[in-house]
Amino acid sequence: MRLRNVKNAVSILENSPYYLKNPLEYRGNFQTLFSNSNPIHLEIGTGKGQFLIQMAKKFPNINFIGVEKYASVLVRAIEKVSLENISNIRFFCYDAKDLEKVFTKEIHTLYLNFSDPWPKVRHAKRRLTSPNFLKVYDAIFKDKNRIIQKTDNISLFSYSLETLSQYGYIFERVSLDLLNTDISNVLTEYEEKFSSLGYKINYLKAWKNQ
Amino acid sequence: MRLRNVKNAVSILENSPYYLKNPLEYRGNFQTLFSNSNPIHLEIGTGKGQFLIQMAKKFPNINFIGVEKYASVLVRAIEKVSLENISNIRFFCYDAKDLEKVFTKEIHTLYLNFSDPWPKVRHAKRRLTSPNFLKVYDAIFKDKNRIIQKTDNISLFSYSLETLSQYGYIFERVSLDLLNTDISNVLTEYEEKFSSLGYKINYLKAWKNQ
Repeated sequence: MRLRNVKNAVSILENSPYYLKNPLEYRGNFQTLFSNSNPIHLEIGTGKGQFLIQMAKKFPNINFIGVEKYASVLVRAIEKVSLENISNIRFFCYDAKDLEKVFTKEIHTLYLNFSDPWPKVRHAKRRLTSPNFLKVYDAIFKDKNRIIQKTDNISLFSYSLETLSQYGYIFERVSLDLLNTDISNVLTEYEEKFSSLGYKINYLKAWKNQ
Repeated sequence: MRLRNVKNAVSILENSPYYLKNPLEYRGNFQTLFSNSNPIHLEIGTGKGQFLIQMAKKFPNINFIGVEKYASVLVRAIEKVSLENISNIRFFCYDAKDLEKVFTKEIHTLYLNFSDPWPKVRHAKRRLTSPNFLKVYDAIFKDKNRIIQKTDNISLFSYSLETLSQYGYIFERVSLDLLNTDISNVLTEYEEKFSSLGYKINYLKAWKNQ
């Protein structure tokens, strides 16, 4: 995602009830944020937030947390969610590689939507389905690991099929053309744009016992 | 594959040293056909044989067996291989669903190239990667199950990713655009035609311990 500087980004974020300034203080207690025992679904690389906000409206009995590395992008999600009145969503800024510092075993499902494919082999470790990230995720899933990935990038997708499988994940569902299936789907901003141009969306839903 | 009647098909087959008229008589002893202890690779749905014949020429230290359901198609493979002088290839006609009657645990690797996708859900059991076929394969692999599949059909491919994964297979390699990878590849007749038209070839290499 192209980054833009957003004036007053920090102040917009910090004044929003949807934004967690210091997520570390909720470690082990994220459930208290929502005052219920509903499962917590996490999106890494939540970008401008369209996917997660729509999901939160569609599934009021699920709690959603969006993590985004760049404040200048996340501010768009915060602006968008501020137009809504929903209680089951929060966002914070963080680097995914350190998420085990933020969460204990409290996540039900993880979404990886149109993550950076890092096409160069020497950057493979940065892909969000590389084994070092899968190790981080092991530390944050509650009872069972559940990952849902969408991408139009076939190299990232085949890489994920390999790494997840070799790491012990089982594929519950796979599609190489998500929008032509019966799989329930909420579109991201990126997905809306690229699927309208005819790009096929790849999808996987995988799980692993702990 | 479109079927054509071929005059004298039976006589062409039965007069060829590359054709096994009664494969059941080699059950447990297929290795003796080749007078060596090299691994035996099997192709189910070998069609007109281009893939397997090229493989046999390229890898003289591997033995290849091609199975095809229709004599009228297999006769083309037999005609083709008769122009060669290779000792490491044999063919026979059989229905894949009964292959456990033909082989004991003597196969090293199984190729499924551009198999019939059987797109209708009620025909899913006929797909060569449906669980009932995977059960048949369990009975014929020697030390470890190894399957290599190629297809341009994305529904069959995603189905295979699901069924193989759920059956305990691990994906060693996956590609959604085989011809743009460094994976060593011998083209089938079908692949040659459809890849030249711009269709992407999906590829998986999977293994399972017994």
